[in-house]
Order: sequence, then structure tokens, then C-alpha cells
Amino acid sequence: MKNKKISTAVIRRLPRYYRYLGDLLDAGIVRISSQDLSARMGITASQIRQDLNNFGCFGQQGYGYNVEILYDEVKHILGLDKEYKIILIGCGNFGQAIANYPNFSKRGFVFSAIFDNNSEMIGQSLAGLEIMDVEDLEDYLAENSVDIAALAVPDHAAANLGKILVNAGVKGIWNFSNSDLRLPENAIVENVCLSDSLMTLSYKINEDDILKRVVRDVW
Amino acid sequence: MKNKKISTAVIRRLPRYYRYLGDLLDAGIVRISSQDLSARMGITASQIRQDLNNFGCFGQQGYGYNVEILYDEVKHILGLDKEYKIILIGCGNFGQAIANYPNFSKRGFVFSAIFDNNSEMIGQSLAGLEIMDVEDLEDYLAENSVDIAALAVPDHAAANLGKILVNAGVKGIWNFSNSDLRLPENAIVENVCLSDSLMTLSYKINEDDILKRVVRDVW
Repeated sequence: MKNKKISTAVIRRLPRYYRYLGDLLDAGIVRISSQDLSARMGITASQIRQDLNNFGCFGQQGYGYNVEILYDEVKHILGLDKEYKIILIGCGNFGQAIANYPNFSKRGFVFSAIFDNNSEMIGQSLAGLEIMDVEDLEDYLAENSVDIAALAVPDHAAANLGKILVNAGVKGIWNFSNSDLRLPENAIVENVCLSDSLMTLSYKINEDDILKRVVRDVW
Repeated sequence: MKNKKISTAVIRRLPRYYRYLGDLLDAGIVRISSQDLSARMGITASQIRQDLNNFGCFGQQGYGYNVEILYDEVKHILGLDKEYKIILIGCGNFGQAIANYPNFSKRGFVFSAIFDNNSEMIGQSLAGLEIMDVEDLEDYLAENSVDIAALAVPDHAAANLGKILVNAGVKGIWNFSNSDLRLPENAIVENVCLSDSLMTLSYKINEDDILKRVVRDVW
């Protein structure tokens, strides 16, 4: 039987469940009903039950969820019970911000190498690692296993690097450029496109006016 | 008649349409069929037609889309035919990266003030602006109209600042912290949660194994 695919919307809610369950755990709360979790997260209780049922049955009628068990399950579902080797390519403002972010290593994402093409950066230290020449990336990938590559390079450089990474067997690409990488369909890419995000925000600010115009045009 | 709400998935595709149409325009392409656009974007042609029909009828049977007209329409839908005043709160690595990002002002998002609470940062220059004391934020908001606030502060500081911004009438909050701001339901917030994004990537890397386990457990 083929695995059914989980919808993107559900997947994007999983890290939020993980964060909220972590907070509950830190607060010493042992169990929680889907209604309570619903009120905290601003998601309906039935949505929570549906989301979690995609991965098995974790709740018990009349008891709710055991916080620690559910936390561990969501942690496992998100693959956070393993360690990941990340490399960073691109040490501009964003690259530096990503490399210095303290939360990632706490969650098991550990930077193992950092690359740039700027001769003034190469050899410098960033987040405890010596910045390597991106010319040496393919040699590095041939000799070292890498789980994730954070790609924080200018748009025009992203596509070619994406191909090199996928060909070398890097499992996932965390793409901070503003261009869609054209990669084989099975390549795993997570885009953080800040331009798109800002445009989404300006859409939301204008949504009421836009939709009023549509209604007026149509009726 | 009440405006129908557009689904989040559609909204998140709009900036991508805008980017692809901009590229077509730059390449001098005058018209494009939904099939052609589909092949370039990796979205089905019927999805494209459905998405755009939410905002009116832009294509013509047998002709396709006029690139320039559609580009202008999507630009308008995204609210990109206006200028937005942004303030930045938080000048750490991410704040600096956001302030120095060249694409935003090109799209009409112009930084008008920058704040931090670190006395060593206050008075320094960032992206051509003098960093102000966050203590002066409320005074500034009382005297200046602000469309968008980029919130790049530590998690524990985000919630309170979010309330101040919404109360002062800031239209949209671009939240880079890892906490969900608890704001009135009509507040407009766009979250860029890098931790969530990285967890989503690790989910995708592990998805096949996770779903195999679910199938095994259930059958």
C-alpha cells in the first residue's frame, strides 16, 4: 500500500504543535484536552484531532492527550530525535544570522561547514567554523555526508548550487534565495522567500479592498 | 454581499505568479498560455486558472494571458502599486539582514525608522537610518504613520511589542520571532518562523519513514 501524502497545511502546523507542547511540558502540565490545546493555539479542536490522526491515534476519549507522550511523538514525526549535519553556503547578512542562531543546534541541527566565494570572507571564522572556499564544495561533499544545506546566496547563484547539492546526495535544501530552484521532483526543498513573505503581508493589508473590487466587478 | 475569503494556499502562490510574470515581462514575452505558465511554475494549468479566477477573469480562451496586463493585475492584487512605510524593531543579525535587503525598497517597502534596546546600537547607523531607542517607539508611532513593522526581537519581547504596534494602528506585523503573537483576531500578522521552517524540512526528509510506520501501525 502506498503511503498517503500529508497535506502541506498539516505539515506546517506540526512545528507549532511541537512548540506548544514543549511549553506545556516546561510548565509541568501532564495532560491536555484537544479543547484546551485548541484555545491556546487558535486552531479548532476537531482540526487538532484530524491533524494528529494522520500519524496515528494519540488521544483518548475523556482523557485528552498525555503531553509528554504527544510531545515525543510529534518530535519523532518531525524527525527531531536525530542529529542533522548542516552546511551553510553564503555568509552575507542572512548567512551570518542563520549560522549564529542559537536554537538550531539545540534542536539537533549542527553546522559542520560554511562556504563563501568572497576571498575576504574565506578563512575567517563564523559560528566557530572557518569559512571555506565554495570552489571546494564538491570535494567536501564527496568526502563528508551532509543532511541539509542552507543556501543563502544571491539568486543567480542558487540554481547551480542547488543542482550540485542534490547530485551530491544532500537530503534537503533550505533555500533562502528568491528564486525557485529547478530540481528533480524528488528533491526536498524548503523555501524561505522573504520577498514572497512581505508581498503576502501587503496582500493581507489590502485584501478587503481587493475583494470588494472583485465583488463589484462580478455583480 | 460579504467578500469571500481567499484560501491561504492561493494567497501564498500570488507572489510566485508575480515573480514569474516579471521574468516573462523582462524577457519581452507578450502573452502566455496557462499551459506554458504551468510548465514554468510547476503548477497545473487548471490550478492557475482557478487561482486567478478568484480575482476576476484575466485570460481569454485561445489567447491565454497578456503578460503585462496580468502582471499589473497581480501587482495590484498584492498591493504593490503603493508605497509602504516600514519600521524595523531589533537590529541583531536578522534585523540587519532585513534592513540591508536591497529588493524591498525596489518593491515599494521603505524603511522609515529602526529601533533597538541596546545602548551600544542606539545612535549607530543602519541602512542609512539612525537606530532609535525602542523606549521612544510609542512616541514615534503617535507622531508618524507606519504601515508595517518588522519585529526581529527575542521571543520574550515580541508579544508586548506586538500589542503596542497593533494599538498604535500599525497595519501589518512581519514577525520574525519564534513565538505566536497573541493579538486581536483582526490583527494582520505574517510569521517568518525559521525554526518552524527548519523543522518542516526535517519532517520532509523523514516523511517516507514516518508514513510507513503509520501504515504498519494501522494495518
